[in-house]
Amino acid sequence: MRMKRLIGNLMYGQSGGPTSVINASAYGVISKAREYKENINDIYVMKHGIQGALNEELFLINEKYDTDINLLVHTPGSAFGSVRYKLKSEVEDNSDYIRLLEVFKKYNIRYFLYNGGNDSMDTCSKIAAFMKKQSYDINIIGVPKTIDNDLPFTDHTPGYGSAAKYISNTMAEICYDMYAYPIGKVTIVEIMGRHAGWLTASSALASINGFGPDLIYLPERPFSIDKFKEDVKRVYNEKKNCLVAVSEGIVNELGEFVFASKKKDHFGHSQLGGVAAKLSQLISQDLKIATRSVELSSSQRSASHFQSIVDVSEAIAVGEHAVEYAINGLSDVMVGIERVSSAPYQVKYNYFNLEKCANEEKKLTDAMINKEGNGVTDVFIQYALPLIQGENKPKYHLGIQTFAKIK
Amino acid sequence: MRMKRLIGNLMYGQSGGPTSVINASAYGVISKAREYKENINDIYVMKHGIQGALNEELFLINEKYDTDINLLVHTPGSAFGSVRYKLKSEVEDNSDYIRLLEVFKKYNIRYFLYNGGNDSMDTCSKIAAFMKKQSYDINIIGVPKTIDNDLPFTDHTPGYGSAAKYISNTMAEICYDMYAYPIGKVTIVEIMGRHAGWLTASSALASINGFGPDLIYLPERPFSIDKFKEDVKRVYNEKKNCLVAVSEGIVNELGEFVFASKKKDHFGHSQLGGVAAKLSQLISQDLKIATRSVELSSSQRSASHFQSIVDVSEAIAVGEHAVEYAINGLSDVMVGIERVSSAPYQVKYNYFNLEKCANEEKKLTDAMINKEGNGVTDVFIQYALPLIQGENKPKYHLGIQTFAKIK
Repeated sequence: MRMKRLIGNLMYGQSGGPTSVINASAYGVISKAREYKENINDIYVMKHGIQGALNEELFLINEKYDTDINLLVHTPGSAFGSVRYKLKSEVEDNSDYIRLLEVFKKYNIRYFLYNGGNDSMDTCSKIAAFMKKQSYDINIIGVPKTIDNDLPFTDHTPGYGSAAKYISNTMAEICYDMYAYPIGKVTIVEIMGRHAGWLTASSALASINGFGPDLIYLPERPFSIDKFKEDVKRVYNEKKNCLVAVSEGIVNELGEFVFASKKKDHFGHSQLGGVAAKLSQLISQDLKIATRSVELSSSQRSASHFQSIVDVSEAIAVGEHAVEYAINGLSDVMVGIERVSSAPYQVKYNYFNLEKCANEEKKLTDAMINKEGNGVTDVFIQYALPLIQGENKPKYHLGIQTFAKIK
Repeated sequence: MRMKRLIGNLMYGQSGGPTSVINASAYGVISKAREYKENINDIYVMKHGIQGALNEELFLINEKYDTDINLLVHTPGSAFGSVRYKLKSEVEDNSDYIRLLEVFKKYNIRYFLYNGGNDSMDTCSKIAAFMKKQSYDINIIGVPKTIDNDLPFTDHTPGYGSAAKYISNTMAEICYDMYAYPIGKVTIVEIMGRHAGWLTASSALASINGFGPDLIYLPERPFSIDKFKEDVKRVYNEKKNCLVAVSEGIVNELGEFVFASKKKDHFGHSQLGGVAAKLSQLISQDLKIATRSVELSSSQRSASHFQSIVDVSEAIAVGEHAVEYAINGLSDVMVGIERVSSAPYQVKYNYFNLEKCANEEKKLTDAMINKEGNGVTDVFIQYALPLIQGENKPKYHLGIQTFAKIK
């Protein structure tokens, strides 16, 4: 690493959809930054990510937050507020960049750490390019997070393991519950993941103790309604029950979402959801089998009580490494996790060019998906299983989890 | 209690919708029955409840099940299979009763314990009446379970506390997650409960640590769509977010389900569900506010990882008491829980006439619901809070819960 130790203040923020461990990364950043008193005087956290920087809505982290900072490790959501704000390209409109430079100068920000997924890495990369051209000395590091696990280069992304633990354990519970009655149903569970099937695939981990999905449909393989009906019929005829895990992002042969609504979000992404309900309707109409549809919904990212210990530790570690990389003169990179071995599970940390991280989505490899395109292979299980290990102990007060209250 | 110690075998079964602790009651029954070797020779468990008795599909409990019987305490669903089977009245068709008597005689069943809700207590009561007329000596005890908490006489029902713990903690997580963005949404969470609002009301417990629903709509109060829109508008204007808990069983001024489908189940109950989605649509169309709808779905009864310790202990205890009551000559009664005090929380066990238990549904009292009909009072909180206390430690293998496998 090139040594270019800057002295000044650190700014950190959260962006995009929360995960149940993004606040654990905040904890990692803050606690590690406090160790570098010679380089980092003050720690500012942006309220609602980049929007807080533009509006000068900042939390200056001091002792009054100490109790809450410890609670961050088990707090879901974005404790400091998140945002989905698309920075225009500099050519199109450079006003945000100019404003950011002004704020950075005002607060003497020399370390900028941004915690997010693909879109946030894009934001980071653009800011880094602008500041470089302006010769403003600042080290900019992306801290990865996404339940979707679709960031490239890194073996996996903090947030994924806990979501996978929630999904797989919930699938095991649903599966066990489903066999209560003599004549069962087709239960279709819809799982998040716009373009990559990592979350949906994680449902297969449930089967490790005997109770998991019979069929899994991923966005990586074209979805055929006829094939789906055949699969379901075959399983149901044999077992009088059928548990299906389906990605909200399944696409047809033309690569179009099978059941997308026409609504788009701020980034121009189609709004998904309702796939399980629509497939249920098809099955009950065409096959005359009773169905139930379940959408796991926002619990996939917010079920903090189901954090995996492996995921929490790694979320803290990527925050810590981001600070260390920045202190040691690195900039314009995202922290990544490199798997050293799966058994025993061992990782080390690394860094990758931000722009490259922003513009690629990692999908399941062919070796992870079965031939029929309706399940996963042992290659996937070996990959994902280490990530859901360890049960966390959230803090409870009167039977309800207690979360950080940052004000 | 009248002493009429019968000698013979015991038959136990599970009926109706599972709860996350019905198997803990099975554990209580089996372990207690094993202590009464002088009276109880063999323990039979019906496969799929009463259907297993009629078809002679029975598990004879012996040592080979020991490991699984210990796992029952944290196993969701119905480990022995459940059923929704409506026994016709004796006048209408007495063939099932005659068949049952035959099976009871064949297996020398002198203790019949049936674990269920209202409909199951009805089944129990009818069997008890028939056996009495036939002068067949058998002690019949109802073991209460229902997440709905609508059985009368008993202060509360095993299954409710764990469902309430799952619901309230999930609401706290959803609430925290919801505040991530600068401009929020109206999030509408649909909660189970056909005629009684106990489960929906339990969402209010989330607020104890600061993150809970803003509005709660129960089947106990007529639901007005106009009033609902006003409530949501007011909260959203103030907070830029609004979290709504709504019962699947909300009814209008005429007592009709607000959004029922025309489908009926075996008991003639209307199929519910989809209320949150429909209310979301109303809000986004009429108030032009972004919405999200969540159905907590079957996890409410199957989220065994969220069992409350209080609930697990009581579920075991009602099973144990059922055996003791039966041994001591009681019959035609349901075990109930009597609250001695709320602070400190203390209960004792009692029994109530089966027929009375079958034909009444317990609802929230007026004192538990706020004046506006869109929330609960402290009376409810004091009632429900003790029931969600204590965090359980499910057994995990490789990061996934392990459940009993009864074969």
